[in-house]
Amino acid sequence: MGNTDNTRPRARDIGLTIGILPAGRWNAITDVPGVRVGQVTVSHGSGSLRPGVGPARTGVTVILPHSDNLFLDRVPAAYYQFNGFGKCVGIEQLDELGVLETPIALTSTLSIGRVADGLISHTISRNPEIGISLPTVNPFVGECNDGWLNDGQGRHVGERDVLTAIESASDGPVDEGSVGAGTGMSCFGFKGGIGTASRIAPPSLGGWTVGALVLANFGRPGALVIDGVPVGQLLSDAENTPEKGSLVMVLATDAPMIDRQLRRMAKRAVLGMARTGTTGGHGSGDVVVAFSTAESVRRPFEPEAQVIPAAFVAEDGPGGTSELIDTLFQAAVEATEEAILNALFRATTVIGRDDHRRDALPLDRVIPILRAHGRIPAAGAM
Amino acid sequence: MGNTDNTRPRARDIGLTIGILPAGRWNAITDVPGVRVGQVTVSHGSGSLRPGVGPARTGVTVILPHSDNLFLDRVPAAYYQFNGFGKCVGIEQLDELGVLETPIALTSTLSIGRVADGLISHTISRNPEIGISLPTVNPFVGECNDGWLNDGQGRHVGERDVLTAIESASDGPVDEGSVGAGTGMSCFGFKGGIGTASRIAPPSLGGWTVGALVLANFGRPGALVIDGVPVGQLLSDAENTPEKGSLVMVLATDAPMIDRQLRRMAKRAVLGMARTGTTGGHGSGDVVVAFSTAESVRRPFEPEAQVIPAAFVAEDGPGGTSELIDTLFQAAVEATEEAILNALFRATTVIGRDDHRRDALPLDRVIPILRAHGRIPAAGAM
Amino acid sequence: MGNTDNTRPRARDIGLTIGILPAGRWNAITDVPGVRVGQVTVSHGSGSLRPGVGPARTGVTVILPHSDNLFLDRVPAAYYQFNGFGKCVGIEQLDELGVLETPIALTSTLSIGRVADGLISHTISRNPEIGISLPTVNPFVGECNDGWLNDGQGRHVGERDVLTAIESASDGPVDEGSVGAGTGMSCFGFKGGIGTASRIAPPSLGGWTVGALVLANFGRPGALVIDGVPVGQLLSDAENTPEKGSLVMVLATDAPMIDRQLRRMAKRAVLGMARTGTTGGHGSGDVVVAFSTAESVRRPFEPEAQVIPAAFVAEDGPGGTSELIDTLFQAAVEATEEAILNALFRATTVIGRDDHRRDALPLDRVIPILRAHGRIPAAGAM
Amino acid sequence: MGNTDNTRPRARDIGLTIGILPAGRWNAITDVPGVRVGQVTVSHGSGSLRPGVGPARTGVTVILPHSDNLFLDRVPAAYYQFNGFGKCVGIEQLDELGVLETPIALTSTLSIGRVADGLISHTISRNPEIGISLPTVNPFVGECNDGWLNDGQGRHVGERDVLTAIESASDGPVDEGSVGAGTGMSCFGFKGGIGTASRIAPPSLGGWTVGALVLANFGRPGALVIDGVPVGQLLSDAENTPEKGSLVMVLATDAPMIDRQLRRMAKRAVLGMARTGTTGGHGSGDVVVAFSTAESVRRPFEPEAQVIPAAFVAEDGPGGTSELIDTLFQAAVEATEEAILNALFRATTVIGRDDHRRDALPLDRVIPILRAHGRIPAAGAM
Repeated sequence: MGNTDNTRPRARDIGLTIGILPAGRWNAITDVPGVRVGQVTVSHGSGSLRPGVGPARTGVTVILPHSDNLFLDRVPAAYYQFNGFGKCVGIEQLDELGVLETPIALTSTLSIGRVADGLISHTISRNPEIGISLPTVNPFVGECNDGWLNDGQGRHVGERDVLTAIESASDGPVDEGSVGAGTGMSCFGFKGGIGTASRIAPPSLGGWTVGALVLANFGRPGALVIDGVPVGQLLSDAENTPEKGSLVMVLATDAPMIDRQLRRMAKRAVLGMARTGTTGGHGSGDVVVAFSTAESVRRPFEPEAQVIPAAFVAEDGPGGTSELIDTLFQAAVEATEEAILNALFRATTVIGRDDHRRDALPLDRVIPILRAHGRIPAAGAM
Repeated sequence: MGNTDNTRPRARDIGLTIGILPAGRWNAITDVPGVRVGQVTVSHGSGSLRPGVGPARTGVTVILPHSDNLFLDRVPAAYYQFNGFGKCVGIEQLDELGVLETPIALTSTLSIGRVADGLISHTISRNPEIGISLPTVNPFVGECNDGWLNDGQGRHVGERDVLTAIESASDGPVDEGSVGAGTGMSCFGFKGGIGTASRIAPPSLGGWTVGALVLANFGRPGALVIDGVPVGQLLSDAENTPEKGSLVMVLATDAPMIDRQLRRMAKRAVLGMARTGTTGGHGSGDVVVAFSTAESVRRPFEPEAQVIPAAFVAEDGPGGTSELIDTLFQAAVEATEEAILNALFRATTVIGRDDHRRDALPLDRVIPILRAHGRIPAAGAM
Repeated sequence: MGNTDNTRPRARDIGLTIGILPAGRWNAITDVPGVRVGQVTVSHGSGSLRPGVGPARTGVTVILPHSDNLFLDRVPAAYYQFNGFGKCVGIEQLDELGVLETPIALTSTLSIGRVADGLISHTISRNPEIGISLPTVNPFVGECNDGWLNDGQGRHVGERDVLTAIESASDGPVDEGSVGAGTGMSCFGFKGGIGTASRIAPPSLGGWTVGALVLANFGRPGALVIDGVPVGQLLSDAENTPEKGSLVMVLATDAPMIDRQLRRMAKRAVLGMARTGTTGGHGSGDVVVAFSTAESVRRPFEPEAQVIPAAFVAEDGPGGTSELIDTLFQAAVEATEEAILNALFRATTVIGRDDHRRDALPLDRVIPILRAHGRIPAAGAM
Repeated sequence: MGNTDNTRPRARDIGLTIGILPAGRWNAITDVPGVRVGQVTVSHGSGSLRPGVGPARTGVTVILPHSDNLFLDRVPAAYYQFNGFGKCVGIEQLDELGVLETPIALTSTLSIGRVADGLISHTISRNPEIGISLPTVNPFVGECNDGWLNDGQGRHVGERDVLTAIESASDGPVDEGSVGAGTGMSCFGFKGGIGTASRIAPPSLGGWTVGALVLANFGRPGALVIDGVPVGQLLSDAENTPEKGSLVMVLATDAPMIDRQLRRMAKRAVLGMARTGTTGGHGSGDVVVAFSTAESVRRPFEPEAQVIPAAFVAEDGPGGTSELIDTLFQAAVEATEEAILNALFRATTVIGRDDHRRDALPLDRVIPILRAHGRIPAAGAM
């Protein structure tokens, strides 16, 4: 269980409306049918850093595209790196084959080896012939650096945590903020972490869902923009230090999209990121991974025929219109922007190694600013 | 000469302040020392479209990195395609070698062949041994589709126009809006075209200039955002049609950056684009080309030695800081955003083929909106 | 009509067997059902070079994937650049959308603008609404530098030649050597040009055809390898000068492959190229474009439904085998290697500008070498 | 210590001459001054596979660019994936920043997580402030699947082995064949593993060294080509099964090359691979990583100045010649081809899990074939 404070609202709860498309039931990546999220928070110790020992302020978050055996019933996927100052694992094969064959795991940078190893263990446990009569497996791990609050060298997330996160994954609401991989993350000078949101296309345009889940650990203090309002500048105490940290964005959809189309959609997540004010600092490893859960584009490991059928969204639709894919792109932009805001809104203050303190976004000051700029109703929703 | 109306202000003239860095003297790409811009507007005929004949509402805009022989004294350059729904010429070699060896020409989509041919003619005229004792030449052409106003099939821009644009190129202020390649372009449902802006890094961080010049022909009506304000939504008559057209962004800098670094900076231009409200429609070919004019990174065709010296910006600077490159990235974001706004602000209404009419951005309605949102001073600058 | 000498054999005619798969009926790219090739040779003048006037030793070669309206019934395609020292036109959109919407045209480097313009004219003539109610069109042009024999500056290939080449395109045998775009090309110090070959997969593995057509203008004198034999070294008069020129490889198949798979197959063409002895010189722009003609992967411009059906080769086939795709890859390697050899075998001596002379490969000396190395039967087929 | 048999010759020992450039003193990657190689072989158990227990036939091989602190004194590097059916770790940042900051480690596929973790431990041990006041670190791991001989699921290579391999790394001769990461690898149906070779450019062309080290686990039985001779076909018992396994190629040079140039050189390694007969099977993850040790292109983490000096090879050298870079490309092709042959020549028969047996290349039968084809002198060198 994470470090959540249910008195803190999500962006939508205070009346913010990001974009023009409606959100799904949970306004979460789990609105995409079949997608589940699991999280393990690793938090112990306090005070001075003892490298390799603690304090730990970290964790792991996993996203599962569906409940079947993902290794045998792979989903199309794509990776896009806006800024590759990061250490994602699993890129080579994802780029070449356009499929995802393990859950996506997000964690602390220095823990990538152990978490990748945990994904391998998980996949072997479900497919005991891996590396014997079956091929090996390609684990996918995204990461951000939580070293300002966490004893990163300690690599406190291990195989056991990965397996627990997978086993405990569920659909429905998703814990946000200082939980799972988000436990030790910072964002625009405030506490960041896990955030999620979703959008639904109109029934006439497919009615599909696009969900985003982000690990938000980016943004220069002072640069935060909320729904167009330069909140970071207006909070008088904003420092101005170089951007560090990173942003990992995960997109899921039930729209039938092949890997080339998913890569295109992944790129649009960056537009959502841009709306929150970042200018893409050198040290911010901003990457996106996107997948589709649609049955019609799955890539079974051992198909029955030599030629496999598929069906995917027409980029030039009936009458030559691009409205179908444009709406999916729009959904990706909006869901990513709102997911980042949710990470900020929901994250609670965390005190970590060497008593480093990262304060939660001061909503009591943010809400009046947004109201003054007409972005939320005069009578706020809190 | 273009279709300019000097009563229309640039974004900055009404009091808008985009970003945090100061602009250069002209707030134009020509603030980068040595960079020149030339434009030829091709506008004739009116009324019904006679394919191949007219009316013509088009032109060409060229950007020259320096005044020496560019073919022999090449500048490092990089290309980035956010969305490749376009027909740029010259990508192959630019990607492989990381140099630009002709001026950059912007024009109407169907004119790419003739304009590329014009750049070849220009380069031969200055280097008569091309293809004989010298290698051939790689022309670079960017394009947007002006077919809603212009008889695109007529391909009204030819070699003569390219040569004239190059010969007439100058430093100093740059005509914006419905001129040159921008003559027939549309943007967010209004008249678009050519826009430019620049930013200067603080002296302690290199003091370099980054200039942007855009050919703006993108954006869904209703989606326009100006400095965070959803102006498109607030202009009551905003339609909502799929995004068509494209955006070509050109970045110039005198910071010594090699091609890998320029590609990184080019990507940041997309963040500036995102701030104007687009969600990256399928049909919008949004691309960036960036170059550096610094002497220390030039790539002479026939160097004197086997090993050529260079000097470029440290991404991890003294003390491990990334402030130098981060500031250049910031400058690219801000200059691109403002260049797009300048295209919209300066463009005048154009009536084209079949009496299609694209209205200029109604500044009389936009300014009060921006003032109401606190983005410009209470007493506007008009 | 090209400069052909029907007494010169193709590689197979002398008993060479390249690889292990059988060739198609014509051992040509036209073995892929529906694919047609058209060529126009432009050859006039002699003696001293008069830049812009002549002599001309050049031309254009076009490859048409099918006989329907390609702009409306697009084929999946992919581009791969092994070495981007070249000036291909049409890369941006091909990479983004994975479709080909014009014939592929091959020509002389400096003629790319005019040939691209010719492809645009061709497509407009068949689709008069292009740029009006239809989108614009993305022409694809590949090129090599024939400037050692040809007056490249003269750009002697124009719209008329492109249209003629397209109109005259046919299936069946393909002229090779010093014809069409190959008229002025050189290869491993000998006369190069157009070459083609094909391979057929076993019926149990799909029975598909892979055809290759190359424009061969690459290879350092002395480096030529034929079927593993270092023929270049063994021909005593081999010079050793830096590699110049380029190699454009076109692959066609009726196997149902989507663009990602075609890109993978395109990369394998480079292995075929490698077998002929090149070490990939800086100045050799070696690129591949591959397309599939299969109905099940076509990308109609205006489909009837929002979700379009497709069916493509399983990379992990029944039982998890990769034999299907592996055989297609093998076919691409073998067909490319043999196409290059056919260009060399069939090309006739050409005397061009400034009386530059490029001799045909001396088969009377090559055949004994191959026989001595056991690569062709003791009683040669000539 | 590995499983070496010093009676088995290297390719050159029997009189083979691959290419035209001379080899360095050791004909190894360690001919590049400063480069060291360390290997740990993990081999225990026999008989039936007990997944997770054994038998183990695996190991780790590390390549160190220089003896200084690599994390602070980074070398330019580039990654190229010909076929991304693999699980390399460290791609994201290598592509973005063009630097290598840990040794390169090669190992068994499923061990990537643990080996990456070991590299992290190593780098922390030398830089105790990593993730505290210094950034995190990007480990680079390449892999092949040794599961036919080895209990891959057991992931028998761990942190301890990585540290030992690094500590024991040395210059001079390199163990080849069934050692280190090569212990359980197969190649063209025979025993494969580690191989290395080098080439020296003529003094007039820089005099630089290019070294290759490969982990060879690729190639369809029957497809092996040695110096142009189809040895695989001629060994009568050649089976014909789909290609599995992979090839990791590491290139080192003391030529001053920046990352863009190193990527170009990396691509040429694939031409060397092609000469050994592979057609690039779907399941063969063939990748290259290349780095330069030259002082003039190093990328110190904390430089003293904002603009860092560099000096790199001119691709267009004095007089416009490309001979300098062409020779480096040639060296990469030749060294890679010979390194693969050395892996095959030196590897000894290994019996692994379930008594799977992979025989060494039968040199007693290979040598007469090569002699009959005139590729080695009549009186062999054994």
